Amino acid sequence: MSEAAVPSRRRELTRQRLLDAAQQVFAEVGLDAASVEEVCERAGFTRGAFYSNFESKEELFLALVDRVSTERLDSARQHLASLELSGDFVLTSGQGAVTRLVQQVLDASGEDRLGVLLTCEIRVHALRQPELAASYLLLEESMCDSVAQLIDDVVRTQKMELSLPLKDVARTILGAWESEAIRATMLGLSGEDLRRVSGERIAQLAELFIVPPKR
Amino acid sequence: MSEAAVPSRRRELTRQRLLDAAQQVFAEVGLDAASVEEVCERAGFTRGAFYSNFESKEELFLALVDRVSTERLDSARQHLASLELSGDFVLTSGQGAVTRLVQQVLDASGEDRLGVLLTCEIRVHALRQPELAASYLLLEESMCDSVAQLIDDVVRTQKMELSLPLKDVARTILGAWESEAIRATMLGLSGEDLRRVSGERIAQLAELFIVPPKR
Repeated sequence: MSEAAVPSRRRELTRQRLLDAAQQVFAEVGLDAASVEEVCERAGFTRGAFYSNFESKEELFLALVDRVSTERLDSARQHLASLELSGDFVLTSGQGAVTRLVQQVLDASGEDRLGVLLTCEIRVHALRQPELAASYLLLEESMCDSVAQLIDDVVRTQKMELSLPLKDVARTILGAWESEAIRATMLGLSGEDLRRVSGERIAQLAELFIVPPKR
Repeated sequence: MSEAAVPSRRRELTRQRLLDAAQQVFAEVGLDAASVEEVCERAGFTRGAFYSNFESKEELFLALVDRVSTERLDSARQHLASLELSGDFVLTSGQGAVTRLVQQVLDASGEDRLGVLLTCEIRVHALRQPELAASYLLLEESMCDSVAQLIDDVVRTQKMELSLPLKDVARTILGAWESEAIRATMLGLSGEDLRRVSGERIAQLAELFIVPPKR
């Protein structure tokens, strides 16, 4: 964003409140069923305020995808940095550490019920719209890189080895985590139960992927 | 369905043509953006024909989920049966056989671009509607059982062992296959390229999950 285009503070607040409302509405009812009116009502703004910030519902959705991606990655990165500072890596054995750390990073990235819904909503639209597909694939790739970095740190610190290439380990663990999150949401499990079942699943895979050095 | 409720042949044909049209329209634009008019137009029927078969667009969607589930499972089971008859299990080594067979079963279950889209569409609605969630979870569970049966047959025939419980192996392989299918669809890959990348991914996992007996 160029210096001249930086919006005033009030304008930015309005924009963020519209995005907060959109995040809830899109997750709850989906992009197609959501109306600009509903988003405005939730945010406590008029349609005028909406259209001075976004051209259309679709532009709002794109801006939301952008914000959600940035937030999830920032949260994952901050969490990574705090873990490095705390030296938490060396407290548990290789696989146990990976399970616990991956879970913390994914929990921190906002994958609660609405988060799971929003990810699935973005995915289904990205499958239909090439301009969204690029953002979606970039988000997925970056989340995968964050998890990969985490695993790499644990593996190096604990002098373990990987039985698959790093990115494939990260991808498989992320995928397993997400499918457990989807199932848990459909079954109406609590956040605590979700963490338990996804934790068991990640632990099981980590044990196969992260192994002691051959000699 | 009771004997008295069995529709006439013509009525059944109309119903199936409406479901064919709905399958395309729902995959292309999604449940919310799809209209009864669009489905009727695609099927070549009037709204009258539609409403004598379905009460609403939502009932049509539920019937479609039901049909897609039945079709995918039938196709997977038929494929399994034909493989058993052909003795195809013993031609390749354990992991190679699993990769090839799982891929054939998943290919046969209609997971092309529209299939991937429809699965994601059903999933996002199942996350919002408990009555759909049950159907979705049942379909997922049954597909997982089919893949598990396939893996079990290969493992027994070839006297191999599994490094994780059977259902977890099946679940992880299915999940990896689907995430490759989603990515391939977003990248616009051809069916052939999709089979290549998903095949590599399954092969890599099969090699870790299916191992020679310890002694």
